[in-house]
Amino acid sequence: MVDVSTRSVAQDPAPYRALRRSPGAHVIEVIDQRVLPHAHVTARIADPDAAALAIRKMLVRGAPLIGVVGAYGLALALDRDASDSALAKAHSALDATRPTAINLRWALDRVRDAIMPLPVAERADGAWREADAISNEDIAINHGIGVHGLELLREIARRRSGPVNVMTHCNAGALATCGWGTATAPLFLAHAEGLPVHVWISETRPRLQGSNLTAWEMAERGIPFTVFVDAASGLLLRRGDVDAVFVGADRVARNGDVCNKVGTYEKALAARDNRVPFYVALPSPTIDWNLASGDGIPIESRSADEVLTTVGRDEYGQALRVSLAPPGARAINYAFDITPARLITGLITERGIARAAEWLSAMFPDEQRKRA
Amino acid sequence: MVDVSTRSVAQDPAPYRALRRSPGAHVIEVIDQRVLPHAHVTARIADPDAAALAIRKMLVRGAPLIGVVGAYGLALALDRDASDSALAKAHSALDATRPTAINLRWALDRVRDAIMPLPVAERADGAWREADAISNEDIAINHGIGVHGLELLREIARRRSGPVNVMTHCNAGALATCGWGTATAPLFLAHAEGLPVHVWISETRPRLQGSNLTAWEMAERGIPFTVFVDAASGLLLRRGDVDAVFVGADRVARNGDVCNKVGTYEKALAARDNRVPFYVALPSPTIDWNLASGDGIPIESRSADEVLTTVGRDEYGQALRVSLAPPGARAINYAFDITPARLITGLITERGIARAAEWLSAMFPDEQRKRA
Repeated sequence: MVDVSTRSVAQDPAPYRALRRSPGAHVIEVIDQRVLPHAHVTARIADPDAAALAIRKMLVRGAPLIGVVGAYGLALALDRDASDSALAKAHSALDATRPTAINLRWALDRVRDAIMPLPVAERADGAWREADAISNEDIAINHGIGVHGLELLREIARRRSGPVNVMTHCNAGALATCGWGTATAPLFLAHAEGLPVHVWISETRPRLQGSNLTAWEMAERGIPFTVFVDAASGLLLRRGDVDAVFVGADRVARNGDVCNKVGTYEKALAARDNRVPFYVALPSPTIDWNLASGDGIPIESRSADEVLTTVGRDEYGQALRVSLAPPGARAINYAFDITPARLITGLITERGIARAAEWLSAMFPDEQRKRA
Repeated sequence: MVDVSTRSVAQDPAPYRALRRSPGAHVIEVIDQRVLPHAHVTARIADPDAAALAIRKMLVRGAPLIGVVGAYGLALALDRDASDSALAKAHSALDATRPTAINLRWALDRVRDAIMPLPVAERADGAWREADAISNEDIAINHGIGVHGLELLREIARRRSGPVNVMTHCNAGALATCGWGTATAPLFLAHAEGLPVHVWISETRPRLQGSNLTAWEMAERGIPFTVFVDAASGLLLRRGDVDAVFVGADRVARNGDVCNKVGTYEKALAARDNRVPFYVALPSPTIDWNLASGDGIPIESRSADEVLTTVGRDEYGQALRVSLAPPGARAINYAFDITPARLITGLITERGIARAAEWLSAMFPDEQRKRA
């Protein structure tokens, strides 16, 4: 989707990687994000079932990252059986792991389409190559988002003194990708060039990707941050403590409606009510060009236990699950919501910032042509 | 403020009471709400310092209840020393326990004003009588709110079949009062008359008064409910799963701006965006007639630890505090926010439902006269 073959990819300087593959190895290693920041555990994924499980159980999460893990999962499947029927089966098993992020389907389709024309004996190698390419492009795409988003931060910094205060939600960080993150890429680039930023991190119940993952990433990189409960985002925006909101996306419709972690919509409403710019960082594989609006996006409903319990660190430093509600309580757990395009100031893509859905289409004429 | 002497008070039929006083006893008993629903513990409050501590440490919480506990705290102080100076000192010590809810100041002022004209020897008895009166009036006021709010629920039930779905936030229940609760009173009356209701309970981080207290109250009364994370309120409203939002208040300005648990503002924004009626249940002692708008309301900032940790029940049934963020993380913890009057469909008071600030003033001409 993005031609990165002719330019060098600016590597994320952070010491951690959500996913690593040693050159030539038919195995990947991922950080088990379920236990961060309480423990740092990596998991080896050496077969397609493990890849599917890692996505389903959320060892890995984040739309771009699950796309890449899906791609490698397909490569692992083809190592075992590269026939058309095995390919179709593996594709559909991996695609069924999580429903909302379109990157997963996009990456699986891309690997499949790349290797289908190849002789069966060459398919596995082709799949590994394609998965590597997707992984490398992800880094380049996020860096591109960072470059464009950085301009917005510089603009704010020019207008006033003190750090630029950016609110974010969930984790659209390097952990959600192969490097840089999406919403965080501009922040990381700003910090690297000495532009002071302060990040307001919404804790993001029920799984606490904000206080567990984004806070951990900021601490690792030495970027000042403050955690707050999700319900306080309106107050912080109303107080004037926030210069801009930057969030990621799990799927974006053609009209610019954004599906992202539940709670994004409320932040967009509060940003609009207080005239704070609201940006969505958006790698192009997250755009579902087949969807006219956000209404068609399937919203994952996860286990009620995630709401009725939480994982924390006890006094001995051990991660522990505790119950938060009376025994027998019922809960609902929709993982995502839809933010209508009308509430969004701009969509930050690797090709630039789209201020409206028409801009998005104009920015990706190649995608338009494919569907003409 | 409300003349309840001539009408019988409809007693809340629930078996639990946030506060009890045995007739004649110079001591009160309260439920320790910090450990509900994991344990049911009551605390005896037999001196004014214990009353202050119970409010400050949040064994008791909820604007109406802390008002009543403050009033009893003053009575306990006067048992020991009823001089003018001791009264002033006890008043200010109790008033300083929590800053946002105006009911506390209101109740303390009321007891003080009632007993100041009395001979010193009669002041303590006078204070106990006045505190009892405030407690009884609170039950009557909340019942009045229930009667008016019930009309709204009946109206919704007439328009369509199935249970009436009401979203609430935090705990504006019987536990926040001496009986019936404020936002919950209409729900409890509806349930009692067989009108089916279903309550959407926002968990209310960081202290989880929704999943801990409101869920417990609904379970105790057999009212169907579903817990959700605070960030999901926008989605639920957008899905059309909610007929009305009912919340409580900690302080209301003369213009109808409402200060309530942080997160209320976001729910009001989302309700407006989806044309769902948004009601605030409002006992008149919660109105600060001296404040022109919500901007003047002091917002309590509590310990960051409440955000960085949480209390849950471990596998052995013991309440336990666990850490949720990386060591050294910083957090901010504003306990309340301001919802502008423009977002509120109606203020449900014991005298009726005010659709705008002017109605509120017209509903309380006695308060207007006091300040003329």
